[in-house]
Amino acid sequence: MIRLLSIVSFAALAIAAPVTAQETEKPEFPSPNAIVDAAPASAWVKIAPSDLLIMDLAPDAEGNPRRVVIQLMPDPFSQGWIRNIRKLAQAHWWDGTSINRVQDNYVVQWGDATEKKALPEGLETVPESGYETEATTGKQGDIVLWHPKNQLTDSYSDWTWFESGWPLAQEIGNDTRTLSRWPVHCYGAVGVGRNYSPDTGSGAELYTVIGHAPRHLDRNIAVVGRIIEGIEHLSSLPRGKGQLGFYEDAGKRVPITSIRLASALPTANQPRFEYLDTEGATFAQYADARANRRDPFFIKPAGGADICNIPVPVRRVSGK
Amino acid sequence: MIRLLSIVSFAALAIAAPVTAQETEKPEFPSPNAIVDAAPASAWVKIAPSDLLIMDLAPDAEGNPRRVVIQLMPDPFSQGWIRNIRKLAQAHWWDGTSINRVQDNYVVQWGDATEKKALPEGLETVPESGYETEATTGKQGDIVLWHPKNQLTDSYSDWTWFESGWPLAQEIGNDTRTLSRWPVHCYGAVGVGRNYSPDTGSGAELYTVIGHAPRHLDRNIAVVGRIIEGIEHLSSLPRGKGQLGFYEDAGKRVPITSIRLASALPTANQPRFEYLDTEGATFAQYADARANRRDPFFIKPAGGADICNIPVPVRRVSGK
Repeated sequence: MIRLLSIVSFAALAIAAPVTAQETEKPEFPSPNAIVDAAPASAWVKIAPSDLLIMDLAPDAEGNPRRVVIQLMPDPFSQGWIRNIRKLAQAHWWDGTSINRVQDNYVVQWGDATEKKALPEGLETVPESGYETEATTGKQGDIVLWHPKNQLTDSYSDWTWFESGWPLAQEIGNDTRTLSRWPVHCYGAVGVGRNYSPDTGSGAELYTVIGHAPRHLDRNIAVVGRIIEGIEHLSSLPRGKGQLGFYEDAGKRVPITSIRLASALPTANQPRFEYLDTEGATFAQYADARANRRDPFFIKPAGGADICNIPVPVRRVSGK
Repeated sequence: MIRLLSIVSFAALAIAAPVTAQETEKPEFPSPNAIVDAAPASAWVKIAPSDLLIMDLAPDAEGNPRRVVIQLMPDPFSQGWIRNIRKLAQAHWWDGTSINRVQDNYVVQWGDATEKKALPEGLETVPESGYETEATTGKQGDIVLWHPKNQLTDSYSDWTWFESGWPLAQEIGNDTRTLSRWPVHCYGAVGVGRNYSPDTGSGAELYTVIGHAPRHLDRNIAVVGRIIEGIEHLSSLPRGKGQLGFYEDAGKRVPITSIRLASALPTANQPRFEYLDTEGATFAQYADARANRRDPFFIKPAGGADICNIPVPVRRVSGK
């Protein structure tokens, strides 16, 4: 019995595509990308420049610039580490550090390869409790109804969902009242490297996911953001040949020219990004289409999707 | 209620690590890799050279050789396409073709960029029914008991499991009697490119997954194998700047020197590989450890895993 009940039909939860009795031909179903392209301006939410981290790498072998843009997570998630990251960027701490580790189907990691560079004053030591965030205490019914369109089955939590543009997981405590939530490790997620517990990392050593979502890292490492542009400058780097994909040859490390908050750049140079409002109707339609591909190439819609296979659309915009 | 029942505890299904009443100290839990490293010889299954496809690419910019090894799926999965692939390799059809598409967090694709090269005689036209394989017809109880240790929750099927070294998904038909199974798109899976339905592709155009598992492709494209060595030669290639990640600049395409079945090479040159027997006790222990990381780095075991986050261990062996 568990086997059958374990499948929640996403289609039943999401907005069904309209089919009228008059239609005798197969209705046309737009692709997820087409849905996003047709989204009204009101479906997009601006990302504040103070939540963007701009990482410039040394140019590639052909002299092309390499810029990676990271969006930091909003309150209340991982804020202790994020405060440290803002301080590190303000101190220009990463300038002259490097990409040191590229492990296939896992992570790219950057920071101070010497592990000797002094950290700025005033960084917080964040406790392990910071990996999870206690949320609304209430009846279970509240949770089920909270986001009826975005619920997904999950192998790593009681429940996954999207909130304020981010993929999250949550779990009911044994007391059936306490609810904890945490950000998840999807492709492009940015996390805080650390040593063995109780160390949780300062934020000076960061990594991003370049393979299948390593969700076993959830609640074991702090997720602080995600790459929204330029991940190919990291994911296409040669894999390191040392243990865990670290470069054995220091010459393979890619120098980091600078990491800055976008808000620290002159206004004219600040890149502008928006994400698709995860609380809106367009996102629900997009998520449904991701879970039930009915655009012409597809024969059999999956009927579901895991949270990391529904990436939140983010776009670069021009102007103010 | 569905929410709570939707979580099947992997720990409850897998072999629990032994803890005796005498133990007062925290027991030591080996990492998944340590479990694999300690596996007895009997836990490994040889892969026949006739099931290995050896793809040699032109050397990289530094003159290093680039070899990719693909393991083909066993009967009864995707065999029509695999027969075609064997014929294409025997005809040396791929020699002089190229890697034409690299799309970040999705696929690398290879074949004849001109789309004009004549195919060998005698290739099969495989119908869409080949995407799924009808399996044992029986009571539902049989299925639940089939592999009690390897069951996993899944967002794309009724059930995922491992059989003969491969990750598979299955679904009970509406008649509650027919069972269909299919191979899944995990990282490194190799599939058959195609045009719009009813075309299912000949096998001449192949791709591999280099990002988060695109499980929505399951049952829509034929999975014919997986890369077991050298995927980094594909996953670290520069991303294509054309639509869908195709290289706009033909000069970016990486030439394929040759693709051969290992069985067509002189015996002394045939690489030897083994996979960890997915029906054995070591694999169950490994899968449990992947789903419940208790090795020193981890604080909170996930309590579950999706099938693509439990890659089947494969190793290269020397000798006969």
